[in-house]
Amino acid sequence: MILVVTLNPALDVTHHVAGAEWAGVNRPHEVAVRPGGKGVNVARTLRALDTEVLITGLAGGPAGDAIAAGLAAAGLAADFTATAGETRRTFAVVDTRRGQTGLFNEPGPLVSATEYEHFRARYRSALAGSAAVVLSGSLPPGVPAAAYAELAQLAGAAGVPTVLDADGPALMLGATGGPAIVKPNLEELERAVGRPLRRPGCTDPDPDAVVRAAGELITAGAGAVVVSLGPAGLLAVTSEGIWQAAPPGPAPGNPTGAGDAAVAGLAHSLMHGHGWPDRLRHATALGTAAVAEPVAGEVSPGRYRELLAGISVARRGT
Amino acid sequence: MILVVTLNPALDVTHHVAGAEWAGVNRPHEVAVRPGGKGVNVARTLRALDTEVLITGLAGGPAGDAIAAGLAAAGLAADFTATAGETRRTFAVVDTRRGQTGLFNEPGPLVSATEYEHFRARYRSALAGSAAVVLSGSLPPGVPAAAYAELAQLAGAAGVPTVLDADGPALMLGATGGPAIVKPNLEELERAVGRPLRRPGCTDPDPDAVVRAAGELITAGAGAVVVSLGPAGLLAVTSEGIWQAAPPGPAPGNPTGAGDAAVAGLAHSLMHGHGWPDRLRHATALGTAAVAEPVAGEVSPGRYRELLAGISVARRGT
Repeated sequence: MILVVTLNPALDVTHHVAGAEWAGVNRPHEVAVRPGGKGVNVARTLRALDTEVLITGLAGGPAGDAIAAGLAAAGLAADFTATAGETRRTFAVVDTRRGQTGLFNEPGPLVSATEYEHFRARYRSALAGSAAVVLSGSLPPGVPAAAYAELAQLAGAAGVPTVLDADGPALMLGATGGPAIVKPNLEELERAVGRPLRRPGCTDPDPDAVVRAAGELITAGAGAVVVSLGPAGLLAVTSEGIWQAAPPGPAPGNPTGAGDAAVAGLAHSLMHGHGWPDRLRHATALGTAAVAEPVAGEVSPGRYRELLAGISVARRGT
Repeated sequence: MILVVTLNPALDVTHHVAGAEWAGVNRPHEVAVRPGGKGVNVARTLRALDTEVLITGLAGGPAGDAIAAGLAAAGLAADFTATAGETRRTFAVVDTRRGQTGLFNEPGPLVSATEYEHFRARYRSALAGSAAVVLSGSLPPGVPAAAYAELAQLAGAAGVPTVLDADGPALMLGATGGPAIVKPNLEELERAVGRPLRRPGCTDPDPDAVVRAAGELITAGAGAVVVSLGPAGLLAVTSEGIWQAAPPGPAPGNPTGAGDAAVAGLAHSLMHGHGWPDRLRHATALGTAAVAEPVAGEVSPGRYRELLAGISVARRGT
């Protein structure tokens, strides 16, 4: 079983509007409401791989109830610790005429020390039955910034490897807890080290700068760093070497959740003891397959298997 | 007690953003969640008048639970019939930099015939203890378009007068049920009769055209028609004469909910048996006081009393 921690899940509300009036009244022609947040996307991908998952974290209020009900309806097991504050919503306005989406992300409820303490106790019990842990997404207000470090440490002490996917201080501090893998994207890695990792005027990453930045996260405590580079695939900086995995070509679609699908692949590979080349092939194929799906985290197993053979994995000379 | 019917209430979610990115990610600096819909605004105003209110209607799912919890927290009594479908949300993006608001209104759940039948039974029981009924706002999908006509008829048969505030077919069909007062605004009255009520190139209403249009609603079955004209106040077309009530001057603020406050004033006056001039003075002062408040339906009793003396009411020669 893979334990997926989502401390700040969200109820994702999506309105489809043909030509939004930003200073007027709109009647969306389609409304979708579903449990969201990066951890939920990871769990959806793991389920597509027929892997047993338990989602844990914090949820409260009617939006929290809606998430629990939505996960149950989707057949995803969840065990949330209740918060007095209400779980956040994200609101997306998809303008089908202009082809653009505006996303409005609430910060999340203020979590009390006692509520976090209750969660931590349940997390420790759940570790006993877990083969891997995923720590994913933002921390709600009130949860200590070093929470991911502590959760990764607890998992490590229980012999369970962790994949950490976070941003900002949650990522930098989290790395000190010794997660097996940290998975930032390029922007997150730039924020973590506080400098650009692209040459002036370029949008593509500077590979040497990326490898140096990843090295800083490893020095901080991470076992390995896998940087997701969008359509260019994954770059892994590990104690066994540096690897670049890339899909065969551009994948049109919705990149939201592609990184989460890659995280699911990394955790799944950790559980099965795959080596780095297989691990990266697996994660890259899942991330690429997720791009083809309209819903974040969903993956077609057929498309995934089709892609798998076309992923190139190259060891980088150092 | 005044019975307020809200068949399609809404959970109003408001995000405040300084400079919205309609093709990007936004982090609202302020989020407000509250029960909404026109009926809830009417109930808030009645409560400010120290009037006992019972809110009834249809609510379901987590958004319905959030509305029930929000009304209870605000001390407003409610008795909703549960629907399997989830109550709608409205989503407002207030761009504090541009000074504009985009409003996204979901249509509401599909209500089954059985659910509406259960509501109607509870409505009939509640009529026994009611001095007036307010029928307010849109009908959710599945509720018959003539629902307001039937509910007004049932109230009439029980000796309880009704104020109807609706739009489109719900208004035109509702008038046939014999409500004591129908309160459209100018645009709603134009839609009801299917023609403009302003001279070509004018934004101000043509009073003769408005009176003729109101007459058609009376012919259809309404006891009287009170047309809300924004800052120009209220025009009442009744069997006792035609009256125009106007506030002393322009009222800066948020006009959302001003019409609902006027509806509350009309229902409150019906309950107390006020004549038309007092009734219109009362409703105009409440509508004007509501404009000064940031939250729809809220009214400062002090501001209301201050305004009352300044409202002019004139009988129109016919």
